[in-house]
Amino acid sequence: MIRNYILLAAFIGITGTEGFSQTYKDQRAPVTARVKDLMARMTMEEKVGQMNMSSLEGSLKSKVGFGVVESPFIIAGDIAAQSAEAKKHAFENTRLGIPPIQIGEGLHGVLAAGSTIFPQTIGQGSTWNPQLIYEMGCVIAAEATAMGIDQALSPLFDLIRDPRYGRVEECFAEDPYLVGKLGYAFVTGLQGMPEQSKLGIGTNKIMATAKHFAGYSYSLGGVNLAPTPIGERELRTMFLAPFEEIVRKGNIYSLMPSYNEIDGIPAHSSTFLLDQVLRREWKFKGYVISDYGGLGQLYNFHQVAKGPHEAAVLGLQAGVDVEASRPDVYKDLAKMVHEGTINVKQIDSAVSRILTAKFKAGLFEKKLPDSAGIKTKLHTASSVALSRSIAEESIVLLKNQDHLLPLDAKKIKSIAVIGPNANKVQYGDYSYTRDNRSGTTVLQGIRQSVGSGIMVNYAQGCELSGHDRSGIAKAVAEAQKSDVAVVVLGTTSVVFQGIGWNGKAGKDEPTDPFTCGEGYDVTDIDPQGVQRELLQAIYKTGKPVILVLIQGRPWSIAWEKENIPAIIEGWYPGEKGGDALADVIFGKVNPSGRLNMSIPQSSGHIPVFYNYVNSSKGNNREPGTPDKPGRDYVYSSTAPLFPFGYGLTYTDFAYSDLMLSAKRFGKGGQLEVSCKIKNTGNMKGKEVVQLYLGGKVNSVSTPVKSLRDFNKVELAAGEEKTLKFRLTEEDIRIWNRQMKRVTEPGSFKVMIGKSADDIILTETVEYD
Amino acid sequence: MIRNYILLAAFIGITGTEGFSQTYKDQRAPVTARVKDLMARMTMEEKVGQMNMSSLEGSLKSKVGFGVVESPFIIAGDIAAQSAEAKKHAFENTRLGIPPIQIGEGLHGVLAAGSTIFPQTIGQGSTWNPQLIYEMGCVIAAEATAMGIDQALSPLFDLIRDPRYGRVEECFAEDPYLVGKLGYAFVTGLQGMPEQSKLGIGTNKIMATAKHFAGYSYSLGGVNLAPTPIGERELRTMFLAPFEEIVRKGNIYSLMPSYNEIDGIPAHSSTFLLDQVLRREWKFKGYVISDYGGLGQLYNFHQVAKGPHEAAVLGLQAGVDVEASRPDVYKDLAKMVHEGTINVKQIDSAVSRILTAKFKAGLFEKKLPDSAGIKTKLHTASSVALSRSIAEESIVLLKNQDHLLPLDAKKIKSIAVIGPNANKVQYGDYSYTRDNRSGTTVLQGIRQSVGSGIMVNYAQGCELSGHDRSGIAKAVAEAQKSDVAVVVLGTTSVVFQGIGWNGKAGKDEPTDPFTCGEGYDVTDIDPQGVQRELLQAIYKTGKPVILVLIQGRPWSIAWEKENIPAIIEGWYPGEKGGDALADVIFGKVNPSGRLNMSIPQSSGHIPVFYNYVNSSKGNNREPGTPDKPGRDYVYSSTAPLFPFGYGLTYTDFAYSDLMLSAKRFGKGGQLEVSCKIKNTGNMKGKEVVQLYLGGKVNSVSTPVKSLRDFNKVELAAGEEKTLKFRLTEEDIRIWNRQMKRVTEPGSFKVMIGKSADDIILTETVEYD
Repeated sequence: MIRNYILLAAFIGITGTEGFSQTYKDQRAPVTARVKDLMARMTMEEKVGQMNMSSLEGSLKSKVGFGVVESPFIIAGDIAAQSAEAKKHAFENTRLGIPPIQIGEGLHGVLAAGSTIFPQTIGQGSTWNPQLIYEMGCVIAAEATAMGIDQALSPLFDLIRDPRYGRVEECFAEDPYLVGKLGYAFVTGLQGMPEQSKLGIGTNKIMATAKHFAGYSYSLGGVNLAPTPIGERELRTMFLAPFEEIVRKGNIYSLMPSYNEIDGIPAHSSTFLLDQVLRREWKFKGYVISDYGGLGQLYNFHQVAKGPHEAAVLGLQAGVDVEASRPDVYKDLAKMVHEGTINVKQIDSAVSRILTAKFKAGLFEKKLPDSAGIKTKLHTASSVALSRSIAEESIVLLKNQDHLLPLDAKKIKSIAVIGPNANKVQYGDYSYTRDNRSGTTVLQGIRQSVGSGIMVNYAQGCELSGHDRSGIAKAVAEAQKSDVAVVVLGTTSVVFQGIGWNGKAGKDEPTDPFTCGEGYDVTDIDPQGVQRELLQAIYKTGKPVILVLIQGRPWSIAWEKENIPAIIEGWYPGEKGGDALADVIFGKVNPSGRLNMSIPQSSGHIPVFYNYVNSSKGNNREPGTPDKPGRDYVYSSTAPLFPFGYGLTYTDFAYSDLMLSAKRFGKGGQLEVSCKIKNTGNMKGKEVVQLYLGGKVNSVSTPVKSLRDFNKVELAAGEEKTLKFRLTEEDIRIWNRQMKRVTEPGSFKVMIGKSADDIILTETVEYD
Repeated sequence: MIRNYILLAAFIGITGTEGFSQTYKDQRAPVTARVKDLMARMTMEEKVGQMNMSSLEGSLKSKVGFGVVESPFIIAGDIAAQSAEAKKHAFENTRLGIPPIQIGEGLHGVLAAGSTIFPQTIGQGSTWNPQLIYEMGCVIAAEATAMGIDQALSPLFDLIRDPRYGRVEECFAEDPYLVGKLGYAFVTGLQGMPEQSKLGIGTNKIMATAKHFAGYSYSLGGVNLAPTPIGERELRTMFLAPFEEIVRKGNIYSLMPSYNEIDGIPAHSSTFLLDQVLRREWKFKGYVISDYGGLGQLYNFHQVAKGPHEAAVLGLQAGVDVEASRPDVYKDLAKMVHEGTINVKQIDSAVSRILTAKFKAGLFEKKLPDSAGIKTKLHTASSVALSRSIAEESIVLLKNQDHLLPLDAKKIKSIAVIGPNANKVQYGDYSYTRDNRSGTTVLQGIRQSVGSGIMVNYAQGCELSGHDRSGIAKAVAEAQKSDVAVVVLGTTSVVFQGIGWNGKAGKDEPTDPFTCGEGYDVTDIDPQGVQRELLQAIYKTGKPVILVLIQGRPWSIAWEKENIPAIIEGWYPGEKGGDALADVIFGKVNPSGRLNMSIPQSSGHIPVFYNYVNSSKGNNREPGTPDKPGRDYVYSSTAPLFPFGYGLTYTDFAYSDLMLSAKRFGKGGQLEVSCKIKNTGNMKGKEVVQLYLGGKVNSVSTPVKSLRDFNKVELAAGEEKTLKFRLTEEDIRIWNRQMKRVTEPGSFKVMIGKSADDIILTETVEYD
């Protein structure tokens, strides 16, 4: 039946008379038929229009239309209005009425005043809670839909490898499995479940974009846009793995290549990445949109093309369908087809992929957004509550000597709240603001939490950067007159407007220089400015000190680990971050975040990641003494300051009874793994039980340990649960010497632990 | 005629009766015939013996003989005696009388008390003078020959990339061209010129070993033995290039794989490196000897084999002919052949390569070394003078504010010589000692230079590491009573005996903990211990300070660059280093060393190298302001502290008249380049004129600049010379997207400069 319909549609397409039966406008027609019909009607200029992106202004001038438009605005209502205007223009003033895809940023909330602001991605990753990330995706999709946004340029499937790099805050984790799970959750929240999104993008859902493909986050020297030093095997094993999941199983609609080059080949021109791997191996059916200026970089940055036309040939060959953000490399495509430099088939392939996405996303039928009425749809109480929940679960308790935390509000009379981030919100990059009106600071959270019973003594102490020490004395004085001191330090990231990318200071925006975010890389991951001096001055008062870090990248806090009794990693915790942190400090929330990355001892230890191959650590260290300085390194060790998966709680968990359904299994077989977790403390809490595999000898070297499953489980005091995991041969697959994916026979270890460095239960299994 | 002889020899071999005509013992017979004859006589056990290496002791117990033996001794006469004993045993007490290859270390002189100690390789590289390195190779070969050593385990063709790595001191340079030229010079010094060494190793010559193949020096985190993060194109373009030169053109006799793995494949098991590239592409005819324990690492370190037997299969498949340093993986080869795990052809290939080397090296005919009479052959006046010449040319003058240097001995009455390396020799790794009896310290050099006319006030000030500040006050006092202060800081490297690899303190050896050398990697490249505090204390006296660095790795000396008026990089300058440095300080020698590596601003800037691709630097920096902090990095820049090729002299050189024979050339064509260099100062001096190519758009990204020629030229004051260079299409070849080596049409820049960051003359050329 569908087949007949296609034939009919094709027939109509061939007859192609305007005003006759326009199949492509028929919502009941299959997408393939609609695409075919529409393609047959299009001029070359109209096709090329689809392969380009425009501002609203540019799109209103166009008679052929654009594939994608973006909003210059950062207020939700404005975005809705402009989206409506752009689409209305396309429907009414272009010959074929093809609506553009309205693009929006949605990394941790839609980048728009009026939307809900969630914790930055690095905090999302610390939750180890895919369900929460799924729900966040749902909220972002609904809010975006209200604004007329059809596609979010998120999430990132990049892996954290180097904290010098300013965009680590945008990444979920250093581990491909964890990134894959959280990215999958986000995408299904945005697009709907794969079985649904395959049929089409549903109500209050939008298209998602998997980026940056690939290896972007592992750049030479931590410099944004710099080459990725990596071979194909590590690329496939580590960096491509989460993308594969979302393409093969998650039905991602769109994908964005990365700015970086790998071994001399920029991703935007990589037929290996965009054609061989993405389309041939993984069967990607969506469309590829360039990163902003990414095609232009082929000639003006990577210098692998002599100009825009050569870049266009490379981009098309690789399979980049749309150029963002403005026509440059793809602007002369029609002319190039005419001249024979480009084959019309390449154009048709790209356009049909873009149109397929548009039909499946329902763009031809979607109601225009209602800018006046959207406010009720945004920033709802439940969305804000979700943001707070994510913040609560993102907070990682790094140290808690002698159970200093949680503070007992009944036992203290005064609390000092000190530091340059104590009374500032920090949302992180891809936010529209850093101003306090939109959220709760730690100071506000604590004040609200303690009410009038406890005196709160605040001092900023110092700036986030710069070397002005004049405020330290007052901070010390505030600490001295308090029972306990909470010191809130950290970074501040570039924001899109305000004093952000446009370089101008916005109204009421703080003027702190950016110390993190896209293009804000550092050479030294120690605390910036005089923040450590402030902390040390407070420490010297002898008052109990709680260090709270609000930041987009981890610092090297070796001194703090040694000396400060309690340390909380808060990342950028979103608009309710101050409340969530206060609740952790006073024990209303039992911290359940776990580190999503290894924190290096110093910049000179980089790169540090848990899933290294055995030879990464040198072979001269005395066995069993990873922390004892020796040869490699002379004055230090290769161990992280805090390991991947690490995080404390206010209760204790005991692990026992690791059971395996078998001690050996083979091709097609599977292994049931179970263990018991008991809350042996006095407080309800959540534990992230982590399952690692490792210790396998393969024909190529493989990581000593790889995360293959995890379960965040809540247990009441005294409660015990049995957790189950399932393993198959896919979990121990490798890329062999011939770069084939195989499972090789041999024994390996199944390890259950609290972190990559704290394995509690181990069993050995044989695969044959 | 030779052909007939081979046929005859083959016939004799086939008849194979013992005691009949033993072709393999006939010096007049062609090597191929001798090998064939001998192979036909050998049992499997005898063959396997050739593939293994032994101690002297082990070899004396053997009835079948070993391929290679090494000496446990570090005194020249002992080595000679043991070499004689091992060979005598093999000749007289093994059935076929196959002499073993006596292996020795010869990185910067034969590792033996009694030999001449040259500057460490990093200093050799700073000379930019291949002729001197060739002469050094000749001396090392002659001294080794006197000791009965047949093969040196040098030189390294590794590239410097990461100063955290303790073995940078053993490398010539960061640039493949410079490494290739110096390595070639060393090898021809050791082996003789290729046209001669192809016929055989001559009198006073020995076999050389190219190592470590490949990528060893660019390890993750600067950790010795860690994986090399690199793709095939960069590997070929950068790391393989110098090896290719010495294999294709230099007739290297032996090659050693590296410990590291690349993308999951350890070099000792890499058929890509050892078979495809080395033997098939480059036609290597020598033999491959494993690095010590390198085959064992396949199972006990890289974990790509389940045990020694699997490792043996991998090693043989790849093409490792001899296992060093003791039988482990290759000890059961005969049994494995018997069991069918190993094919006898693999054994025969390996053995025939080893025997070929032995016949060509004349081992069957070589006279046994004369341990009693060797002293006259070692450490001759001319050899020591050569060591001093190399030291003189290795010294790099980094800063010389207001012409503080050279000091005028007539104008000063007193000089303070201060610092933990002021009165210590430091030879670097692969030396037998650090004791002062064998060479001249800076203090001794200065005392000798100034005679009795100038008061020399010495204080050690502090240790090389550790935090004892008690000696600083005395050092300050010595500086205060002097006209000028020379502060000598630096590192100290592992030595082979003494308190070195055997872990025990030798007689009279200094006890400073090692801070550099093999396995002595660091995370922080700032000065160790309180050395900077000592320097700052001296600086505060207000006396003019000259900083002399004696070290195996560069430090991050940003503060020193800013504040200290004169800085001299001395590296480890060999046994006459103190004299050479004194001569530079007092102007008897005009410094002519140039940096062979980029010195990073800090550990957090690593990796830093001049031949980066354009995208390595990020794209957000304001054009033309490389040193201005901005985005990428926020608080710093990606520029080196001192660039590759940099070094000052006491005179000035003017560059002019860049002339090209043509502005375009094509396949098979060549380009003559000339320019004029004039010494415009008042002192004779040497300039290193550097020719770089760059600015070419290729189908893959290529370095912004690549050194393609250089000329160290001496000019009297006022003298002008015209230098000529020749370029061909080979100089702009690249590895294209299909990994084919091609030359692509396009324009590029010919740049002549004083350093990678100081290009003075530029012309654009078209290749078509």
